[in-house]
Amino acid sequence: MSYPNYFEGLGVVEEQGWPQTNKVKYAPKKLGPNDIDIKINVCGVCGSDVHNSAGRWGERHFPMVPGHEVIGHIVKLGPQCSRGLKIGQRVGLGPVILSCENCESCKRGHYGSCPDLVVTYNGKYEDGNVSRGGFASHIRINENYAFEIPENITSEVAAPLLCAGITAFAPLYRNKVQKGSKIGIVGIGGVGHMGVLFGKYFGSKVVAFDVVEAKRAPVLQQLNADNFFNNSEEKQLDEAIKLYKGSLDVLLIASNHINGINWDKFISLMKFGGKIITIAEPPSNEALNIRPFSLIGCSFEASAIGSFEETKTMLDIVSKEQDLKVLVEKSPLSSENLANAFRKMDLGDTRFKIVMTDFDKFFK
Amino acid sequence: MSYPNYFEGLGVVEEQGWPQTNKVKYAPKKLGPNDIDIKINVCGVCGSDVHNSAGRWGERHFPMVPGHEVIGHIVKLGPQCSRGLKIGQRVGLGPVILSCENCESCKRGHYGSCPDLVVTYNGKYEDGNVSRGGFASHIRINENYAFEIPENITSEVAAPLLCAGITAFAPLYRNKVQKGSKIGIVGIGGVGHMGVLFGKYFGSKVVAFDVVEAKRAPVLQQLNADNFFNNSEEKQLDEAIKLYKGSLDVLLIASNHINGINWDKFISLMKFGGKIITIAEPPSNEALNIRPFSLIGCSFEASAIGSFEETKTMLDIVSKEQDLKVLVEKSPLSSENLANAFRKMDLGDTRFKIVMTDFDKFFK
Repeated sequence: MSYPNYFEGLGVVEEQGWPQTNKVKYAPKKLGPNDIDIKINVCGVCGSDVHNSAGRWGERHFPMVPGHEVIGHIVKLGPQCSRGLKIGQRVGLGPVILSCENCESCKRGHYGSCPDLVVTYNGKYEDGNVSRGGFASHIRINENYAFEIPENITSEVAAPLLCAGITAFAPLYRNKVQKGSKIGIVGIGGVGHMGVLFGKYFGSKVVAFDVVEAKRAPVLQQLNADNFFNNSEEKQLDEAIKLYKGSLDVLLIASNHINGINWDKFISLMKFGGKIITIAEPPSNEALNIRPFSLIGCSFEASAIGSFEETKTMLDIVSKEQDLKVLVEKSPLSSENLANAFRKMDLGDTRFKIVMTDFDKFFK
Repeated sequence: MSYPNYFEGLGVVEEQGWPQTNKVKYAPKKLGPNDIDIKINVCGVCGSDVHNSAGRWGERHFPMVPGHEVIGHIVKLGPQCSRGLKIGQRVGLGPVILSCENCESCKRGHYGSCPDLVVTYNGKYEDGNVSRGGFASHIRINENYAFEIPENITSEVAAPLLCAGITAFAPLYRNKVQKGSKIGIVGIGGVGHMGVLFGKYFGSKVVAFDVVEAKRAPVLQQLNADNFFNNSEEKQLDEAIKLYKGSLDVLLIASNHINGINWDKFISLMKFGGKIITIAEPPSNEALNIRPFSLIGCSFEASAIGSFEETKTMLDIVSKEQDLKVLVEKSPLSSENLANAFRKMDLGDTRFKIVMTDFDKFFK
């Protein structure tokens, strides 16, 4: 039994499973009138897949099939699909596959801030159905949450744009980062490296921070950051303060863990009116630990993905701007390769984004 | 030996002193060309006086004379004073008595966000001189940091406006709170009650939170808040969420302690794009403890006092708006009364702002 009655995926099947995933079969939710089925080609590995799979974000509904940076081709259209999407067309989706379309956030297109959203995997539909994600043969979603992909963006690059990319792009775009701006990025992994690329695209100065010394060369040479500081070393942080005290317009926190961060030092880098924006979610037992008054003169917020409009704008930019080179490590989908990706990402040791490929070969 | 060679004050003189203060004498800093001497009449008691005096904000320079909501009359003008202030004129000052006048914040008039500011007491001038505050016979400050007080505002009301008042006023004013806005205020003490008053003045709906049940009646009846919830009780918080989920434009955190606050619940009250603003500084061992992604859709910042312009605007409003009734408990200055004020404030049990008076009688 396989498609259309069953989808296949790589799922975490038990409490102690991580980083192991097993091949699992599951019935998709009932096809809604506006649903589409996508046969998946590639799916990026997001930091949230690591935390979620390891149970660091709370309850898992087994089998939990992670993955929410998905690119594939449409193989079925529900009877009332009206967007003009076609069988065979390449589309992608990110971490959110349904929202209420009625709240303040949804009305402004910010479906990722909807309090009643359904996430791409380990989420629950109103009827109790559990969502299962992108390390799978197929996925069934409402047509409105699929993005058309410009022809000249490869699937390997397009996939991570739909979570890591838009998550880094949106806060820079919204805050009108431009020539003359200075931005800092803490954690240069899948999300952070997108921040460096978009920051440079907008013409701003980009100061990069990471705890993995081996990233220094690629961050400076391949991503063209203006500076790199190893923020595990007090001395280097002080050096950064000497150069950039009170000067950053935006500081993106894109690291997978936040417990060790010296907030007082990072806050001292901020310009009056500057914004610190966390864009990677740490394990749920890690929290901000900030003395409120150290924040005077700047603000703190969190941001994840972006609006429909912002996502389309980003895809257009990447399509037109051939110099904007997203750096991916491709890995053919298998349980072993996915486990390796999880381990590598947990150490923050990627250059810079892992994307699982060759789904055809794995799901024969 | 007394003025002009020595000032007298009530100071904390040793590590274990709190809430005891002793009468102390000290030489003022050398009169700068633009300095003025103020003979003090009244001084409000701020939550920061409690934390500072108890050593909860770090090092104290003994004798530490607290107090930074000061009203008095000018008794001396430095030789180059040029603002047109006059001997005998009534002026006031808040928590900051010097700033660099050159940084990004200072250039915009936000002297309270200057990284090199000198606070009114327990601060250090560049030359090493320690600043001593308002529970004293006199204070010597640069003329630019003195505010002229509209004639029809009594000194008892004017004093707390210069810290508690402006601290609550500025974030509401800057965020254009108006008819149709909804604001929440956590902690209805000296600062918080000013927030209720200004919120109502701006025409907004005001939802008040405090852990002291006995404040319910005065908050609703004297301050005219639209609602009061006891946030020590889970049930009442849930009730607040039922009524106000996703609806607050601004939430002011004005409580003296923040460790017990259920951030997830308060964050759920915020509108998309809403701002949570801490305006009271807790002891330095208390910190925000927020899971970053719970913040998606709203932002967190800290604010203290306001710009010169904002302070003048606030004084004008209070002068013109006779319905805006600041509620003070007057207490004649003495070591015993100040200790009582400290104890009462530490319990959050004031209605709502204590102001020490009759300095003439105490400093004969």
